[in-house]
Amino acid sequence: MSFRIPVQQNMMRGNDEWATRNRIMLAEHNVFTINMLSSPGAGKTSLLEAVIPRLKQQLRVAVIEGDVYTTLDAERIANLGIPTVQINTQGACHLDAKMINSALQSLPLSQMNLLIIENVGNLVCPASFDLGEDCRVTVISTTEGADKVEKYPEAFQRSHAILLNKIDLLPYLNFKTDQFRRAVEQINLNVPIFNISAITGEGRELWEEWLTKRVCQNRE
Amino acid sequence: MSFRIPVQQNMMRGNDEWATRNRIMLAEHNVFTINMLSSPGAGKTSLLEAVIPRLKQQLRVAVIEGDVYTTLDAERIANLGIPTVQINTQGACHLDAKMINSALQSLPLSQMNLLIIENVGNLVCPASFDLGEDCRVTVISTTEGADKVEKYPEAFQRSHAILLNKIDLLPYLNFKTDQFRRAVEQINLNVPIFNISAITGEGRELWEEWLTKRVCQNRE
Repeated sequence: MSFRIPVQQNMMRGNDEWATRNRIMLAEHNVFTINMLSSPGAGKTSLLEAVIPRLKQQLRVAVIEGDVYTTLDAERIANLGIPTVQINTQGACHLDAKMINSALQSLPLSQMNLLIIENVGNLVCPASFDLGEDCRVTVISTTEGADKVEKYPEAFQRSHAILLNKIDLLPYLNFKTDQFRRAVEQINLNVPIFNISAITGEGRELWEEWLTKRVCQNRE
Repeated sequence: MSFRIPVQQNMMRGNDEWATRNRIMLAEHNVFTINMLSSPGAGKTSLLEAVIPRLKQQLRVAVIEGDVYTTLDAERIANLGIPTVQINTQGACHLDAKMINSALQSLPLSQMNLLIIENVGNLVCPASFDLGEDCRVTVISTTEGADKVEKYPEAFQRSHAILLNKIDLLPYLNFKTDQFRRAVEQINLNVPIFNISAITGEGRELWEEWLTKRVCQNRE
């Protein structure tokens, strides 16, 4: 459908302008920002529940929750006692930078140093939208299969860290960790991959360290 | 972004016209068609590998494989010895009815009675696009969590059957089957739910029977 192309280009240009505004605003307040992407059910919210109680002892964390309709995830995160803003996209398949800009107006930026954006569960569309973040973090669960890197390359190509979640299920799966790592290396050579289980907590410390280090570097 | 709305409406109207053409063409050839939706890695291709070898003993099956870039799934299905057409969306997040119309030109419609369309792995966007199918079948895996019905209602609301895959992993998960069934009932009261495992084959027969019955009714 050829008429879609110019609209798509305008839309992306508009998005990039909002992303730049967000990036400037966040930098002015020294807020390090990550944009978390994954399929539905890969465990983004559970991972946040696993690490935020410890992260918030050192860092001032806030979360923007992107969901198509519900407030289920935002309620889980707000229970951790940190500032949380819900964005409901009302059917749209991704967050865009203008939505984030609105959400930033409701956050105490000057009292934060880490903002985590949990995107809509979708491995395709969110990968095309810069939100103004410093780092993109893609979560994939072992149950999805190692071929997903090759099948949905955009999310993985532009990631600054990859979380391989649900490693507690590896004994019951035919997931080939080596194949997964090789697939990632082929499109994003030096990206760190963190093997992690939101349920058992395994691998959580390395991911927390990486994140804390990034936030501290951002302050300097 | 208000300028998106009329384009979106035109796009959906265009899609619906192509869907109607597909529906007429498929009905003329007495081909019963299902459109399979799911998140990435829920197991659509594995489920097809599990049931097609037996289905093809009774039915003349063909598959259209939707993927963003790769031909990985189409290769797996073609290995089953049935007509298979690959559609690569080149970054787009769903199949549309015009793409299906092109694919139908390459299929031996007069020698088929079941067409299975495996959509792009995405629980949001494909739910809005009628492809001209008789039935929509949504696959969800136990590892994604029972809250996905409420979080991504469109895919489940308009389904004619739901496959709950990966039930072999239930002993290792905190998935509440009752909660899942209640959530489905709230938005799609009488839809059949098939508990299934593509890996062990458990529950396969009931799904095969349902599908075979639909194809036979279509012939009458």
